[in-house]
Amino acid sequence: MATQTNLSIDPRRLWDSIQDTARFGGTPKGGVRRLACTGEDKLVRDWFRAECEAIGCSVAIDRCGNMFATFPGRNPALPPIATGSHLDTQPTGGKYDGILGVLAGLEVIRTLAETGYQTNAPLMVVNWTNEEGSRFPPAMQCSGVYAGAFALDDALATPDREGVTLGQALDLIGYAGDEPIRADRFQAMFELHIEQGPILEAEQMTIGAVLGVQGIRWHEVTLYGQDAHTGATPMNLRRDALCGMAAVVTALQDIGRQHAPGVASVGLVENRPNSRNVVPGEVFFTVDLRHPDEAMLDKMEAAFLARLAAAAQANSLEVAQRRIWESPAVAFDPIMIACVKAGAEKAGLATRDMISGAGHDAAYIAALVPTTMIFVPCEKGISHNESEAATLEDCAAGAQVLLNAILEYDTRLS
Amino acid sequence: MATQTNLSIDPRRLWDSIQDTARFGGTPKGGVRRLACTGEDKLVRDWFRAECEAIGCSVAIDRCGNMFATFPGRNPALPPIATGSHLDTQPTGGKYDGILGVLAGLEVIRTLAETGYQTNAPLMVVNWTNEEGSRFPPAMQCSGVYAGAFALDDALATPDREGVTLGQALDLIGYAGDEPIRADRFQAMFELHIEQGPILEAEQMTIGAVLGVQGIRWHEVTLYGQDAHTGATPMNLRRDALCGMAAVVTALQDIGRQHAPGVASVGLVENRPNSRNVVPGEVFFTVDLRHPDEAMLDKMEAAFLARLAAAAQANSLEVAQRRIWESPAVAFDPIMIACVKAGAEKAGLATRDMISGAGHDAAYIAALVPTTMIFVPCEKGISHNESEAATLEDCAAGAQVLLNAILEYDTRLS
Repeated sequence: MATQTNLSIDPRRLWDSIQDTARFGGTPKGGVRRLACTGEDKLVRDWFRAECEAIGCSVAIDRCGNMFATFPGRNPALPPIATGSHLDTQPTGGKYDGILGVLAGLEVIRTLAETGYQTNAPLMVVNWTNEEGSRFPPAMQCSGVYAGAFALDDALATPDREGVTLGQALDLIGYAGDEPIRADRFQAMFELHIEQGPILEAEQMTIGAVLGVQGIRWHEVTLYGQDAHTGATPMNLRRDALCGMAAVVTALQDIGRQHAPGVASVGLVENRPNSRNVVPGEVFFTVDLRHPDEAMLDKMEAAFLARLAAAAQANSLEVAQRRIWESPAVAFDPIMIACVKAGAEKAGLATRDMISGAGHDAAYIAALVPTTMIFVPCEKGISHNESEAATLEDCAAGAQVLLNAILEYDTRLS
Repeated sequence: MATQTNLSIDPRRLWDSIQDTARFGGTPKGGVRRLACTGEDKLVRDWFRAECEAIGCSVAIDRCGNMFATFPGRNPALPPIATGSHLDTQPTGGKYDGILGVLAGLEVIRTLAETGYQTNAPLMVVNWTNEEGSRFPPAMQCSGVYAGAFALDDALATPDREGVTLGQALDLIGYAGDEPIRADRFQAMFELHIEQGPILEAEQMTIGAVLGVQGIRWHEVTLYGQDAHTGATPMNLRRDALCGMAAVVTALQDIGRQHAPGVASVGLVENRPNSRNVVPGEVFFTVDLRHPDEAMLDKMEAAFLARLAAAAQANSLEVAQRRIWESPAVAFDPIMIACVKAGAEKAGLATRDMISGAGHDAAYIAALVPTTMIFVPCEKGISHNESEAATLEDCAAGAQVLLNAILEYDTRLS
């Protein structure tokens, strides 16, 4: 394999687009708050569509708001080679998570449009709806719909914590598209993303060649006790739901530590009635378990359920618990990985083989078509945080490797 | 001591007022959500003022919204004998906490107005602003201002979690009164209240003669860690603020159990950023410590601070911690207690000596004038809960003992 060109992306143009779009939901601390299908999400979507159309792409929007921008190739009969990621963020997220992947895709097409270079296959940049899953669980929701992991109607009926559904929210921002859900929009997918972990930075590497994604299981738990007066209710007569939750949080910390490289976390808590002088009678919380090995994930989940039952019993609580999502461990496509490595070599960069700790849209897409990912470093491995940071040089290197990898793959087609 | 009359309150009229006013903030589960100085609080205040004026009371409202309804006595030179409590509730509170005390005071005056019986001193019913402290901490705030425990300006500047101050909220509902804060509006205070604990019901008693109130200390804690991705952040590199809070919640449960009859609780939690796939970087929570013995309360507080420091260190967190309120243990006035016991005897009811586990407005007022409280049972001791319940018979018995006790005290005046 060898790429046929010496095309170079424009590092400054990519960087300016990243910084420019960060104003949509920009926070005082320099992060981004752009929850899926909010007004801020609409603003960045409108910007993205306009920029794509300005360089000759056609933009299709499907029923769950996924955006597919297609740039023509020499042979319109070939299905497109796709890249992309997501433009939504966490409640206090950063400027790079997901965004780099979409805007690097745009930069690749801008580079082609500018030079007049034509690929064999059309190129496509995708913006997947609700990757973060923070407002509407689970994460990677609409790439999951695309790949058939979730039914469209179930996804559209998913409520946020205020009771607004994904479908209603999409309607409200004008991104409930007319296009049907169909899985043949592209033939292959490269997703560029920040690592969201500390390894590349620690090893002073620029490019991660991602071999797969660890397995993920999400649970929701509600513990039911009894609201009571904090002053007049003796300790031995309490049914304190928060004490039950505290025992489970500590148990999950133990379980994560005992199953490294697995991780176990509680991210979201709703304590009720949440008043200073009321013993909490009800607590809702979410549990996130991950491990690269499904058998180990089974063990972590079993340990969690046992500790949950024990905590409930010790505090005289009732439990409602449900596994709401699982994303099995994924292995990416060897040819796609080889294209990334060749693309990096052409750019003069070494690669580091990695397993992704985070879930990504590419994990669902891998079930349909040849797929892989490219990682670049982020400062201290911090992500899902307003202080998330990446350098102009690393973002540009990732976009250049993305372009090279796409061209590598394209030379195989005719 | 002996009362001079055989006046009887009207059990049904009292009950109907309790049930009728429960519609102001009534919840689907049969409780009341009437946070201090909200629109619902305004509705019940307007109702209370109109009812008091309709039977010949004058109603004064002071700068922090405390309402003083005065019914004339034979000797206008005597300072009034006061009763009352509060009409605000917890976010998911009941129909009786505080409300019984105010409406029983109204019932006492209705009984006098109806029969034409005149006391020596004027009678007064007080509705204290923001007893619950749920929206604006701390509890018993405006009886505390009346008694000089808090400066008026500090109280009015207290923000709720949205940043609205007590002063702004009072303005908004039209209860920022013109009357100055002064501590000579009455010469004695009886407060009738549900027990909010399980003792009277367990012992099948109707009337608690309250000898005092246990000491209370409130703290606010914020733990600062680092937001991070739940999938890509190894357990050993995390600074998980929620894990720190969980350790403190468990520690407080231990501390409460080890210091019975003391109690220790966490009631309010704000987890940030509160997203399913973000390791929590910041948690705010409140701590409530109580004991009848101040020396034991010192020990509980020291143990809490030690365990907090240990939890922060174990999770690599920074701590901001502050004691925001203390209410020292209080002993009520022996003559006032004797009036309650005589009043109960006249009503044919035995009394049970008790220490209040909950804080009450009477605890601050006791520093100014002779003060005591009367308790009646509530079902299973449950309070600060929509399912809080008391019977017509017990409410009426409490109101009758309140009337008798006031008349007992009044015979001592001339």
